[in-house]
Amino acid sequence: MAENIVHLVLARVAGAPEGVKGISLFVVPKFLVGADGSPGVRNDVHCVSIEHKLGIKASPTAVLQFGDNDGAVGFLVGEENRGLEYMFIMMNAARYAVGLQGIAVAERAYQLAAAYAKERVQGRPVDGSLPGAGPIIHHPDVKRMLLTMRAMTEGCRALALAAAAEYDHAHAHPDAAQRKRSQAAYEFLVPLVKGFSTEMSLEVASLGVQVHGGMGFIEETGAAQYLRDAKILSIYEGTTAIQANDLVGRKTARDGGAVARSFAAQIEATEDALRSSGSAAALAMARRLGEGRQALLDVVAFVVERFRAEPNAVFAGSVPYLLLAGNLAAGWQLARALLVAERKLAAGEDAAFMRAKIAVARFYAEHVLTRVPGLRHSVVDGAAAVTGLPAEMF
Amino acid sequence: MAENIVHLVLARVAGAPEGVKGISLFVVPKFLVGADGSPGVRNDVHCVSIEHKLGIKASPTAVLQFGDNDGAVGFLVGEENRGLEYMFIMMNAARYAVGLQGIAVAERAYQLAAAYAKERVQGRPVDGSLPGAGPIIHHPDVKRMLLTMRAMTEGCRALALAAAAEYDHAHAHPDAAQRKRSQAAYEFLVPLVKGFSTEMSLEVASLGVQVHGGMGFIEETGAAQYLRDAKILSIYEGTTAIQANDLVGRKTARDGGAVARSFAAQIEATEDALRSSGSAAALAMARRLGEGRQALLDVVAFVVERFRAEPNAVFAGSVPYLLLAGNLAAGWQLARALLVAERKLAAGEDAAFMRAKIAVARFYAEHVLTRVPGLRHSVVDGAAAVTGLPAEMF
Repeated sequence: MAENIVHLVLARVAGAPEGVKGISLFVVPKFLVGADGSPGVRNDVHCVSIEHKLGIKASPTAVLQFGDNDGAVGFLVGEENRGLEYMFIMMNAARYAVGLQGIAVAERAYQLAAAYAKERVQGRPVDGSLPGAGPIIHHPDVKRMLLTMRAMTEGCRALALAAAAEYDHAHAHPDAAQRKRSQAAYEFLVPLVKGFSTEMSLEVASLGVQVHGGMGFIEETGAAQYLRDAKILSIYEGTTAIQANDLVGRKTARDGGAVARSFAAQIEATEDALRSSGSAAALAMARRLGEGRQALLDVVAFVVERFRAEPNAVFAGSVPYLLLAGNLAAGWQLARALLVAERKLAAGEDAAFMRAKIAVARFYAEHVLTRVPGLRHSVVDGAAAVTGLPAEMF
Repeated sequence: MAENIVHLVLARVAGAPEGVKGISLFVVPKFLVGADGSPGVRNDVHCVSIEHKLGIKASPTAVLQFGDNDGAVGFLVGEENRGLEYMFIMMNAARYAVGLQGIAVAERAYQLAAAYAKERVQGRPVDGSLPGAGPIIHHPDVKRMLLTMRAMTEGCRALALAAAAEYDHAHAHPDAAQRKRSQAAYEFLVPLVKGFSTEMSLEVASLGVQVHGGMGFIEETGAAQYLRDAKILSIYEGTTAIQANDLVGRKTARDGGAVARSFAAQIEATEDALRSSGSAAALAMARRLGEGRQALLDVVAFVVERFRAEPNAVFAGSVPYLLLAGNLAAGWQLARALLVAERKLAAGEDAAFMRAKIAVARFYAEHVLTRVPGLRHSVVDGAAAVTGLPAEMF
């Protein structure tokens, strides 16, 4: 008997209610056990084509045909009409996991680009520090690209881990009030982990190709594959816009912005700690974090005030809001890392590692967090520009 | 006789000076005329492999081997050791042309995505304006994506045409002083046309895939091809960083920022005209253009002051400077278009077209120009964060 394959299928049973309330979940295997107990009877489900995709080519996407001949046999999972609810158990875990995929692809893109930049010789450094051509990592713009890749990846990884810690607290903290707070914090952070980390991974993977120059365009180097693979991440298990709708509706408007504002208050406390440190890196971070926090508060106020009366205006800014909040959340985690690294550096621990942490956090503050106020303007001032043009004029 | 192929080859003749000064340009045909006058004699140049590339697959990139057997015959073009100079005649034209390629790819990506968004039915509009699911163009975020694509494409196209007009004036204007000014303006704008339009095309093509959702990831729709093709544009004929070096060095530092400042002065005049108009769109544009112009002036001052003493700091901000100046230059052209459209609208000309022009310009002001101040911070405040991390810590 050939290896069996099991398909999970959402479908409706006869007489089911209309819409999503009438969807059930089925297991549809490729091979069945026959009425006489014989194994390996072919079920009426057939792969009719394999799609040609931009990336993730090791994961075939098939068009399946069910019941063309005598009808396919499916086995109901759980109860009738609860299929969508069951699917969302998978989907909720998948959203977080896809965010991690973004971080993983970004990390690989960074490692590949950094290794290439140290090896590839081209051009003389602009400061004349080498007598002739040197490895391209000596060019300031290559450093800038690599730091952008690294700072975004480290920021998103720290954000994902902070979200995971909230999840653990939500399930296992001894204090019930803390469990509730952590659950709310986790739910606020998940669309940011999914939405921001995946959009970030696209930018990082594209920079990875750019660091390679012309060689990055040749598939042989592997840099282009990360870009091709990353593009699915902002689409599957809910596009960035779907994550942003969740952020705007369930995670911000529903509680009147309470969780978002408590998130801002925690950032403000970190700003105070950064100012107490007083180092150039800490002060730069405090400044950009403060501007970002104010931008977030403006956006939250806008969302909460207009949500009922002007849904189009609010949803026109949903993705900029998500990018703003994700950028800020990742920056906040790097700010916390900066403070820890300064403390450990003062205590004489692993100086090179701690200095790199501080440098990466400062880079993030001045090159990535600086995008946040512009996103605020898109949300708060830019809605009319989106909703003003009727569909037929596109 | 098979069809002949002619290769253009840069190589050095025996005894040529070292470095770029010893490079000559040769024509190396696939077939030669033999000593006895017989045509179709095979030259010793062979294609040993075709690269597998991310995109532009209709344009094969080959590895050629010259002279493996009895030596390849090449014909010198022009004079010995002037090859690089000749190549730059092609390269200077190509830089502008590659910017246009970016605009062309972006335009196709927009047309494809707009058509799909009007056709593809999914989800009920958030404002309840349809009783059930409708075409996705009714979702505010889809409109926002399409407007981003369209505004960036129109802005870059207007910028490229403005640069072309300067080129024409530089060559054919009756007034010598104007010819000189136009030549300087053209030279300032070319790295923006190449650098900004190509980076823009990547963002637009990626949004084009995103508008398609999962279908965009399937090659069949064609959206993914634009993304794959666009990625070469920020690399070939001089990467974005090479354009940015040109902008910083030859186009800004060399004349002490004079051309850049006269560019800012022209933008300021447009801001005055926008304020005279007084419409909501014109005022929004005037505000963002003013912030962008101030950001440009800060960056130009930084570049001019530090260029000699701190080349690493200045070049660390070269690409953010290019993106800032390109974004602003495209926005300025849309501001000019907005003023013309308002005038024509008042005169009763083609109302739908003029309204769309105004709407697109306003969108650009509030969603794209708003990125400019953040780029200023990267250049002016962010240099130490780039140059601070030594190469071995990557």
